[in-house]
Amino acid sequence: MPDLPAFFAELSRAARDVTLGAAVPTADNKAGEGSFDPVTELDRAAERALRALIEARFPEDGIEGEEYGLIRADARRRWLIDPIDGTRALICGLPSWTTLVALFEDGEPIVGMIDAPVLDEFAVGLPGTAMLNGRTLRTSGCATLAEARLSTTDPFILGGGVDAFERIRHCVRVTRYGLDALAYARLAAGSLDLVVENGLQRYDWGALLPVVRGAGGMVGNWRGGRDLSGGDLVAAATPALFDQAVSLLNS
Amino acid sequence: MPDLPAFFAELSRAARDVTLGAAVPTADNKAGEGSFDPVTELDRAAERALRALIEARFPEDGIEGEEYGLIRADARRRWLIDPIDGTRALICGLPSWTTLVALFEDGEPIVGMIDAPVLDEFAVGLPGTAMLNGRTLRTSGCATLAEARLSTTDPFILGGGVDAFERIRHCVRVTRYGLDALAYARLAAGSLDLVVENGLQRYDWGALLPVVRGAGGMVGNWRGGRDLSGGDLVAAATPALFDQAVSLLNS
Repeated sequence: MPDLPAFFAELSRAARDVTLGAAVPTADNKAGEGSFDPVTELDRAAERALRALIEARFPEDGIEGEEYGLIRADARRRWLIDPIDGTRALICGLPSWTTLVALFEDGEPIVGMIDAPVLDEFAVGLPGTAMLNGRTLRTSGCATLAEARLSTTDPFILGGGVDAFERIRHCVRVTRYGLDALAYARLAAGSLDLVVENGLQRYDWGALLPVVRGAGGMVGNWRGGRDLSGGDLVAAATPALFDQAVSLLNS
Repeated sequence: MPDLPAFFAELSRAARDVTLGAAVPTADNKAGEGSFDPVTELDRAAERALRALIEARFPEDGIEGEEYGLIRADARRRWLIDPIDGTRALICGLPSWTTLVALFEDGEPIVGMIDAPVLDEFAVGLPGTAMLNGRTLRTSGCATLAEARLSTTDPFILGGGVDAFERIRHCVRVTRYGLDALAYARLAAGSLDLVVENGLQRYDWGALLPVVRGAGGMVGNWRGGRDLSGGDLVAAATPALFDQAVSLLNS
């Protein structure tokens, strides 16, 4: 096994070569009439660059990306790619979009990258550790909802979870929106304490999980379990805060 | 009258000397029990630096700041300071907070600055023009709600305006939250098309107005008038978009 953090740094550079400094792109709508799921040429070009690098280095591994699908579905190791997480932010000229890559082994995310090109923030999570631009990350020690800094990307896309989210929002110190995966990097860095979201895809949470856990944070689903396949996530700085959030989501 | 853009650039540097690179601060609560209006030592230190510079250069002008009040209330010219707009973002380690300075003459904002230190974005608006790091800003040509990229800082602090905001939110292409004054700089730069907010103070909208108008945008209150003293703002890329938003807010 090669030096994985160094390879993820290569992936970061390859994607940034495509995405950074490009003009604010216009978006195509993947969802069709009546809904909006934006994708841009930058998403596609960044995924192509990442796939090419992985293919060259690990030709036996599976690769699954948001824009170009899955190859080698039977491989024990699989690379998951969201070339641009936060395409809505990107098309609004905002700096919070990220490139996500996760390495799964036997169905479990082992290494994850949250790369924020505009902010020059390269976060990578490994078993037992997480780093931002080479500096070790630790979550805050926040253990009470009343002190917590909460984030969710869009309070209106929580679907059936809006009421549950409202209960949490009213208990915390401050709530911020619109950060997409960057919220999990901030949680790992200790400047946010809690993230509650749903509707996440595997190529999203697969990259976030190693970063948050490597920094000492706790991630599970809204019922407190470890199965994230439903796409509902609670990520917290401490187990105590995680438990309080889960309790309130289910009250 | 000296070179005002150059003086605003001096103000930007003076505030950045204080704010940039500081650790994520903890917040005091100006609002007291049951509410949260954060202020940090960085807010206070940045305002002191700005006041000192203005005082030295324009000793006869009035100065009004969010943290240290008003001096020389009778002066024809008055400088308004919000040392850190987006203190909530700041205490969450997010890059979107800004320093706002406005120059009023006879009660009207003539020049405004939206300075985003972390993003190294210095925007200044003058009569008939607006610039970002020396580059001329123009709003987008967006003239229809269905194509518009909308922003508001927090959909839950709109008070009685939540229903009105909801009507707009459902008509636009994409909505982003949590940007505070940075949203207006993005509107001026053409990557957002519409901002709808209320509850703004004069030291907020006083700085935003010259930037948006200087870039060709339209700013008024929720009823379509020019009086912003109530703190409710619609800022739009084009007059047509402004009219559609006002119409929907009042329907």
